[in-house]
Amino acid sequence: HFSKFMEDKPFPLQLVEWILRGVARVILANNPVSGALVLGALVMASPWQALLGTVGLLASTLTAIIIGQDSAEIAGGLHGFNGMLVALLMGVFSSAGDWYWWLLIPACLGGATCTFLFSGLGPLLDRWDLPVAVFPFNMVIVLFLSCTGVDHPYFPHYPATPPGAPEGLNHTQLHVPQLLQGVVLGVGQIYACGALWPSVLILGGVLIFSPLMCVHALLGSGVGTLVGLSMAVRHGALYSGLLGFNGALGCMAVGGLFFTFNWKTHLFAIASAFLSAYTDIALSNLLGTVGLPACSLGATLIATLMLLLTAQHLSAYRIPIGRVGS
Amino acid sequence: HFSKFMEDKPFPLQLVEWILRGVARVILANNPVSGALVLGALVMASPWQALLGTVGLLASTLTAIIIGQDSAEIAGGLHGFNGMLVALLMGVFSSAGDWYWWLLIPACLGGATCTFLFSGLGPLLDRWDLPVAVFPFNMVIVLFLSCTGVDHPYFPHYPATPPGAPEGLNHTQLHVPQLLQGVVLGVGQIYACGALWPSVLILGGVLIFSPLMCVHALLGSGVGTLVGLSMAVRHGALYSGLLGFNGALGCMAVGGLFFTFNWKTHLFAIASAFLSAYTDIALSNLLGTVGLPACSLGATLIATLMLLLTAQHLSAYRIPIGRVGS
Amino acid sequence: HFSKFMEDKPFPLQLVEWILRGVARVILANNPVSGALVLGALVMASPWQALLGTVGLLASTLTAIIIGQDSAEIAGGLHGFNGMLVALLMGVFSSAGDWYWWLLIPACLGGATCTFLFSGLGPLLDRWDLPVAVFPFNMVIVLFLSCTGVDHPYFPHYPATPPGAPEGLNHTQLHVPQLLQGVVLGVGQIYACGALWPSVLILGGVLIFSPLMCVHALLGSGVGTLVGLSMAVRHGALYSGLLGFNGALGCMAVGGLFFTFNWKTHLFAIASAFLSAYTDIALSNLLGTVGLPACSLGATLIATLMLLLTAQHLSAYRIPIGRVGS
Repeated sequence: HFSKFMEDKPFPLQLVEWILRGVARVILANNPVSGALVLGALVMASPWQALLGTVGLLASTLTAIIIGQDSAEIAGGLHGFNGMLVALLMGVFSSAGDWYWWLLIPACLGGATCTFLFSGLGPLLDRWDLPVAVFPFNMVIVLFLSCTGVDHPYFPHYPATPPGAPEGLNHTQLHVPQLLQGVVLGVGQIYACGALWPSVLILGGVLIFSPLMCVHALLGSGVGTLVGLSMAVRHGALYSGLLGFNGALGCMAVGGLFFTFNWKTHLFAIASAFLSAYTDIALSNLLGTVGLPACSLGATLIATLMLLLTAQHLSAYRIPIGRVGS
Repeated sequence: HFSKFMEDKPFPLQLVEWILRGVARVILANNPVSGALVLGALVMASPWQALLGTVGLLASTLTAIIIGQDSAEIAGGLHGFNGMLVALLMGVFSSAGDWYWWLLIPACLGGATCTFLFSGLGPLLDRWDLPVAVFPFNMVIVLFLSCTGVDHPYFPHYPATPPGAPEGLNHTQLHVPQLLQGVVLGVGQIYACGALWPSVLILGGVLIFSPLMCVHALLGSGVGTLVGLSMAVRHGALYSGLLGFNGALGCMAVGGLFFTFNWKTHLFAIASAFLSAYTDIALSNLLGTVGLPACSLGATLIATLMLLLTAQHLSAYRIPIGRVGS
Repeated sequence: HFSKFMEDKPFPLQLVEWILRGVARVILANNPVSGALVLGALVMASPWQALLGTVGLLASTLTAIIIGQDSAEIAGGLHGFNGMLVALLMGVFSSAGDWYWWLLIPACLGGATCTFLFSGLGPLLDRWDLPVAVFPFNMVIVLFLSCTGVDHPYFPHYPATPPGAPEGLNHTQLHVPQLLQGVVLGVGQIYACGALWPSVLILGGVLIFSPLMCVHALLGSGVGTLVGLSMAVRHGALYSGLLGFNGALGCMAVGGLFFTFNWKTHLFAIASAFLSAYTDIALSNLLGTVGLPACSLGATLIATLMLLLTAQHLSAYRIPIGRVGS
């Protein structure tokens, strides 16, 4: 087994494995090869974003080592993915342009803060056998954006645009090929990446880990796009995949990760995708009134809800958190 | 006993009983006759609203059956009342007018979502022996209103008016008979119903279940009106009963449902009415800044707080949730 | 021992001791002499504020006695400090000027509400051996300010100014002596007191209880000021100490109260001060959009997070809540 094989390797090599696992954890995978594929996709899309993400991930993982977190958790990449997401989103929202080196400071601090939150939320959620998931990321990015504000002298950023915002006069006809492309981009948007081929590569990373989750990722992204149509959101939000990624995450979590697969859990996965996408639109509109994004809060809340459900047709198939993704 | 008697009846008849129980649960009663009275009152006030509420209740209850919730809970109407409230509030806030049939779609989806939330919040709150109460309703209606927004092309709605908003120039003298009518309307507003005779009929429904709760409902609504006066809210909010219903719910929960009655719990019930009404005004003003209503969140939070209280003069009289209302 | 000695004294004398302990609890001390020093400092700064604070504290403590809270908790001053803070902040935000006697009514009601919240949050947080801390104060003051609003006819108040708000044209050079004074004022701001000598006296009160906590208070306030500089906040907020007090509280809680002292917990205390100050700025900006203050929510959340941390280098030194500050 791979993790057995890595045990007596030197520290830098081990760290590389932990980091690649951390990269893969963002799409709920636990596999260094998937992580390497995703990292390649990010470099292809934007080397600066890939650098930022890696710095956030490193800061987060090293903080976990320094403050003395459980080493098995660190080796599984559990203390990295939140930090990576925070750094990626900082880069996306920054209005200072690429290669604005000062941004590495908040990326490091944000990554380190994620580790504190991950460590602290653990005992809270553990009472119900719930995973910490990406709650730390969602909290830290909202706090960072609140802390700095749109016109900040050091770290300016764009305000988040809620999907329900009006588009101006040119409310054009719906363009179906772009809509379908948006479904694929929805998977890339999990890493805040809006380019087509990197998104396909990321999808490949999911495929390597689990073909089932790959199908659910596309399915969930499609559901999210449908939900967006039903709520008459901006076409731009549909084409960019921003409405798909919450659906994709919500669908993958139920359909391929936390529950054993059968047709019942498959139907619940579709329900989870619908709920995630609607919750995302609602939270985006709500937080958008103060210029903040909802990130992946919708999918995280709904996946947590699904894990708490007492309904027999779902709870009977739940996999205990300790045995998930191993 | 009635529920014994229903056991071997055909499914449609049982479903009718569950639905009537669900209707009654909104005012903390567990009695199909009370439910029938309330449903009659709603039809009298507005057939469209009664239809919407019934559809929401049905959607919620059927979802619970389909996903495999505990059948005793379903038979007790526990999976219906949140869905009913969501559908009723959707109707009240909709600016598309009565008999806008498309509204049945979100009413069904909202009702179904309530069941998911009820099922998921159960294990969370169960740790402290707390009821889920109307938390799902309050969450779903806020998410629905955030999701659609005021000028939505499919589901437009009115923005919520906070009670602290200024009334314009004609700040008239207080009209006492209208104020007293507002106290009775406060009980009707639990079902989002602002007409006098239906409100009296709803009060009758409470009386059949428990005269003690009926007294506390009026008492709490009166306290809520007093609180409104002390905070100088719009007179319109006082006359319509919108300030009374949180007080009424908070008072009924402590005074007649979750605690055995004596003069100590009676005083706590009055304190609960005061706290519920103040919390409602605060939350209404706060959520009103983004055009959202506070619904019954104030009373729900305060009733939950009262159940958590360690104070000996109250906690000694608490009835375990499993034996409440049976 | 002092509390032994007080046991057979008459009730008014005991009440005085409880109240002085309650005053000291605000700065995490449990010592009537510290409390007396602080009360003296408050009288020196503003007799009206000292009166308001005492009324809030009394209302809170007497409510706890009346509703039957645990007498050991009451004797330890645990049911007073939240009420005192609520009353002090009501006075600071009130725009009706000093000696506006009507303000005593909300001060009493707010104090009483704090006792209800303290009693209700206890069992919730107890599951993780967490203290209730100043959560009730933070909730009640936000609810009070939401309830009344800026132009309220009876209780008008100033809107909160977020630290990130622009200062107008005269963006002057930083004045270092004022900045250093702001570090000392940061300790006074824990009691909403912005005068120099009373702040020094309050610092003396901390020194009597624990020299270690006194050092951490100044250190944390200094960290908070640094954080403010790094985020380019208004100079006025730096000079007044408003940016220091969250850092001070976060630093004291970790460095001298909830953990045994050593160099590891000292480093965590500094990290806690940084996180508290950043969280405070973020929450202040966020709540500032609706005119509300963040009070000490930042430090309270971060101190709670630190207590939850599973990191071995910190959790190994945690003191159980039952034995803290005795």
